[in-house]
Amino acid sequence: MARERVAEGVKKGYTSSQGLIAQGRGECFDYLIAEKTTASAKEAIKAASAMLLLSKRPALSVNGNVAALVPEEMVALAEELCIPLEVNLFHRSEERVKKIADLLRAAGAKKVLGERPDATVPGLDHARALATRGGIYDADVVLIPLEDGDRCEALVAMGKKVIAIDLNPLSRTAKKATVCIVDNIVRAVPCLTEQIRLLSSLPRSDLQKIVEEYDHKKILQQAVQEIQDNLSRQFQEDLE
Amino acid sequence: MARERVAEGVKKGYTSSQGLIAQGRGECFDYLIAEKTTASAKEAIKAASAMLLLSKRPALSVNGNVAALVPEEMVALAEELCIPLEVNLFHRSEERVKKIADLLRAAGAKKVLGERPDATVPGLDHARALATRGGIYDADVVLIPLEDGDRCEALVAMGKKVIAIDLNPLSRTAKKATVCIVDNIVRAVPCLTEQIRLLSSLPRSDLQKIVEEYDHKKILQQAVQEIQDNLSRQFQEDLE
Repeated sequence: MARERVAEGVKKGYTSSQGLIAQGRGECFDYLIAEKTTASAKEAIKAASAMLLLSKRPALSVNGNVAALVPEEMVALAEELCIPLEVNLFHRSEERVKKIADLLRAAGAKKVLGERPDATVPGLDHARALATRGGIYDADVVLIPLEDGDRCEALVAMGKKVIAIDLNPLSRTAKKATVCIVDNIVRAVPCLTEQIRLLSSLPRSDLQKIVEEYDHKKILQQAVQEIQDNLSRQFQEDLE
Repeated sequence: MARERVAEGVKKGYTSSQGLIAQGRGECFDYLIAEKTTASAKEAIKAASAMLLLSKRPALSVNGNVAALVPEEMVALAEELCIPLEVNLFHRSEERVKKIADLLRAAGAKKVLGERPDATVPGLDHARALATRGGIYDADVVLIPLEDGDRCEALVAMGKKVIAIDLNPLSRTAKKATVCIVDNIVRAVPCLTEQIRLLSSLPRSDLQKIVEEYDHKKILQQAVQEIQDNLSRQFQEDLE
């Protein structure tokens, strides 16, 4: 189903054909974690939720594959946090930005940024660097689902806390992020929204404790271990 | 480069858009084996070479991704074995079969089968089952690069020895095949042709010994272990 959504996105012009290859890579990694939200991903989601709740100016980035896969889910997350979504593309074209913004508005988004960027993220090519004041540009915490390593690093270099969603625990994005949720975006985004709802009544001190206790490297290590364990298990189970 | 070739194949109409997703999945698994032909893959290539040299009627199957990625290499392999190539598609259309056959002829293929199939492989949907007498249909050994599990199983059920090239050692294709080369087709096919050349002067008894000593399950287990080791290594190396 995810595959059909991305193929549909390519057909309608809001996902690039590179997005299909990215989808295939994602399928492979998802298969390696048995297509389930792992224990380490749940820890990461909890830390990400606390971080977003503590944030003064959180921002949510949306690219072509995110728009294809989880438009309603991203809108629900934005609603829960009472913030806009911001369209941000690797292969930027004004037409694609508009298509994605329209798609998000059709999915119920009240405010979508990214059509009129007014600032640039230092250290990136101009088209990649475009961002919006009041959105990603001056956010203190940014959620970047399915983002590349360069952009992740550039946002971290600006002093932001970056929450990535990336199925590859070895990717540069995963490693450079402040928190990385190693999970399929289709499962991770609703889970994140639900967790934010659950944690929203906690006092700030409890949220701070969750963030402080989160160990990024340990969680990534655990994600790698989960893949290794799963490879062994699948191999044993299936081979007669 | 491989990615561009597949994208080009989609544009020219001989690769399906599903082929782009398959390419992405392949990239992920190739990354997991550090984009190198592993020790276990070399063993599999050796066994496959001996099996093809011992075969009375070997056949070589070509689909859209194979045609996009290694047209000249498949022609060179066919030349080395003095046999034709046979076009065989998952999403068969007469137009795509013709485009692929033309592509292979342009790459130097002397004889290409598959445009006029005259037999069916039992146990598959009609379009998937089509095969050619003198080619895959009555072959004793069939090479199926990048093939799905159903077709692999159906060919094995006909009593054929099946050599797969598949980057996923857990796939049904890998498990059901007689020999599976867990490697990128771009590296594996030239390596196979070279190995056949090297082994072609050996007496049949030596070739038989190579085939007998090959342990399919052990080699697949080794491929899984190589992925696990590589995950640990990459994780350690890259994370500061």
